[in-house]
Amino acid sequence: MSLATELTQLLGTAQVSTEPEVLQAYSGDKWYATALPEAVVFPESTEEVARLMQYASAHNIPVTARGAGVGYVGGCVPVRGGICLTLEKMNRIIEICTADGVAIVEAGVITADLQQAVRELGWFYPPDPASKKECSLGGNIATNAGGPRCLKYGVTRSYVLGLTVVLANGDIVSCGGRTHKNKTGFNLADLFIGSEGMLGVITEATLRIIPHPLAIGALSVSFPEFHMAAAAVQNILNHGHLPSALEITDGFTLAAARRYLGENALPKDGKGHLIVEVDGRPQAVAEELDALCELLKNGGATNIQRANSEAEAEAIWQLRREFSYSLKATGMTKLNEDIVIPRSQLVALVEFCREMSEKSGLDIACFGHSGDGNIHTNIMVDDYANPEKKQKADECVHKLFDWVLAHGGSITGEHGIGLAKAPWFKNAVSESTFILHQTIKSALDPKNILNPGKMGLS
Amino acid sequence: MSLATELTQLLGTAQVSTEPEVLQAYSGDKWYATALPEAVVFPESTEEVARLMQYASAHNIPVTARGAGVGYVGGCVPVRGGICLTLEKMNRIIEICTADGVAIVEAGVITADLQQAVRELGWFYPPDPASKKECSLGGNIATNAGGPRCLKYGVTRSYVLGLTVVLANGDIVSCGGRTHKNKTGFNLADLFIGSEGMLGVITEATLRIIPHPLAIGALSVSFPEFHMAAAAVQNILNHGHLPSALEITDGFTLAAARRYLGENALPKDGKGHLIVEVDGRPQAVAEELDALCELLKNGGATNIQRANSEAEAEAIWQLRREFSYSLKATGMTKLNEDIVIPRSQLVALVEFCREMSEKSGLDIACFGHSGDGNIHTNIMVDDYANPEKKQKADECVHKLFDWVLAHGGSITGEHGIGLAKAPWFKNAVSESTFILHQTIKSALDPKNILNPGKMGLS
Repeated sequence: MSLATELTQLLGTAQVSTEPEVLQAYSGDKWYATALPEAVVFPESTEEVARLMQYASAHNIPVTARGAGVGYVGGCVPVRGGICLTLEKMNRIIEICTADGVAIVEAGVITADLQQAVRELGWFYPPDPASKKECSLGGNIATNAGGPRCLKYGVTRSYVLGLTVVLANGDIVSCGGRTHKNKTGFNLADLFIGSEGMLGVITEATLRIIPHPLAIGALSVSFPEFHMAAAAVQNILNHGHLPSALEITDGFTLAAARRYLGENALPKDGKGHLIVEVDGRPQAVAEELDALCELLKNGGATNIQRANSEAEAEAIWQLRREFSYSLKATGMTKLNEDIVIPRSQLVALVEFCREMSEKSGLDIACFGHSGDGNIHTNIMVDDYANPEKKQKADECVHKLFDWVLAHGGSITGEHGIGLAKAPWFKNAVSESTFILHQTIKSALDPKNILNPGKMGLS
Repeated sequence: MSLATELTQLLGTAQVSTEPEVLQAYSGDKWYATALPEAVVFPESTEEVARLMQYASAHNIPVTARGAGVGYVGGCVPVRGGICLTLEKMNRIIEICTADGVAIVEAGVITADLQQAVRELGWFYPPDPASKKECSLGGNIATNAGGPRCLKYGVTRSYVLGLTVVLANGDIVSCGGRTHKNKTGFNLADLFIGSEGMLGVITEATLRIIPHPLAIGALSVSFPEFHMAAAAVQNILNHGHLPSALEITDGFTLAAARRYLGENALPKDGKGHLIVEVDGRPQAVAEELDALCELLKNGGATNIQRANSEAEAEAIWQLRREFSYSLKATGMTKLNEDIVIPRSQLVALVEFCREMSEKSGLDIACFGHSGDGNIHTNIMVDDYANPEKKQKADECVHKLFDWVLAHGGSITGEHGIGLAKAPWFKNAVSESTFILHQTIKSALDPKNILNPGKMGLS
């Protein structure tokens, strides 16, 4: 009997597809590499996922779980074929209970949909990856997704109270629960958070929600030189501010933005830019923006645009999004590496990238979450199909990762390892840490059927 | 050769003791049960811990790691003898770097010492277990310790960026690191956080520190009835406040406090009490206290004492500490269960306890972290040595846990499972979740030498 027939008998016709265009559509994410699965299944319940995993385990068939497919590291590319298990039909918000401060969701719920639903009740689900309108909460949990507001609010992990997970053998495991504190045994939920579909399939989550801040304000701040913007980051934190976001942009990106948006969209000649967002009670936000303006002016800011409301702040974020579009508008291939450095290394990173740019002849744009040190470093290649150019660009990525690791940094802050960063994973961790990854993978998935071929694990 | 001789050869004379009074001193924690180790070792470095674990692993000797020994569940009682490994000599603060927002510490550093050291720089390490002046950061991490300020700031786990851990076989593993975001592989640090010394020995930690809020204010609020205090908790959060602490006290505890402190220490006849602490910028705190006072008065508060500074707030916390002393002053044995309930169940919990108290004839006092639903429920026994009374009290604990689990709660929010709650652990998790605990324990500690005999795992 064919795989498709067996899966159809197991789950029903509507839950299984082997149509070539469907297989193609589920062959990858936002990264370039793809691989076709043999079948795509669309379960609608944890029980269906469990049934599928029992079957896959009995027959040694690889299963690659998939959120919304908007990752950047090929994390859901089914490199060993088998079954693509998409959680997209498990997209119900099961419950929002402000009295308990929890939201219970199926894995396929789109992040922005939950944010909107709790916001209508005056509550807040803070994690805000850039793809929030497309990505799923299950994907966010499987990659421990971040976003600009993580500086104050923490990454996805800080909002996961409980998980329902289906193990490789089909066992359904509940980790954590509905309470805001829980010391019942090991932190098993945390083991699945960020595990990139390699230890279990997350089907349901109980998430912590908090009261929404009553007001939001922001500043868009230009500096003549990048190092002044980096110094302002330190200065802000050292003065007792904990902004909800603190985003930095380098001179290269600003120049590209001026070309794309027109010279008047941004103050002339600035080579460093900050977005500082604060939230809280209305009077507090106003007073804090006053204090920040003073601090930033004293630190050499040449232009400060002030947003006194959430709507005005959104306009500043829109400008920030244009920075990204303006890099795309160069027409070049953008190798976007989400490296993280200790916050004190901001200036050194940008200086290193400038030197590497001069030597290699490739443009390099740095911008991102300066509060966390999570700087998206974009190596720009005008003709990535040209093997010589590709090699040069890949060498730059290699040098960048070496520099980051030598300076106490991490090669990925948000995107994960997946396929794209697997070649560097062993360099990024010690040998004993790599072995421990393997030990845990083997203990939870002895047949290596869950998203096999990722992180360089066997 | 004796164990003592071998250990001395391995680590040096100063690092090993088998003196009877030392063995006695390291036989337990704040819980009643004790067991003597065969030797106590005092390593001074990760390398010494690794050497010890290699030896213990080769010879199948149990090793029970110990922080400061101030736990409440017998977590560091060496029930199978062997070696007590105390981290107390590894008490160096290795580095505090505000520019990177990190503090690097050895496991034996006392929590309050780190808090003080970073506070002097204007920075903040928020986790604040009640025992902060005695407990160690390694112990806090091994139990994922909480405290009143976790409502806003999260538990210990939210502040751990990196760990150095020695595994059962002596391998030294680095998890995470110095960066505030890190998606390099699995969340291995989180697996060790809260693992109660059963998966590895934590020797060093890189902790996240944040800017200290510039001002702190608090309210001490009395209500005629407990349900009004519980309603105020919901009301505060629903109005967009996220206090740094939100502590509730029931009528029984308040009556005991009046007897202990004198009738004038507290407003007469109140059967519910809240402490609401807020922090932030000075003007913001003042304005938020105004808004809270208004809200609380409208909710039926009969007396509000306002603390406008950190020193005044400390006086309110001192009153709260007296609540605990006043229960002790009854002379009764206090079975303090750190259960957690969904926040909406506060009134139901206190009502359940009142009924159980009437039926059993035992007094029951409830107070704690109402924002988290983490209520310390104290069953008071006047003669715990009397087998009949002990049985009655133990039955109450059993009924309490059953009720908590039936209402979506957890049997422990801060203290952990250890020995004390091991009999209930299997009831508190599903069978597949229990099996997964065992799978992970066996994978990381195949000889079961790390703190064996806890959580009911073999």
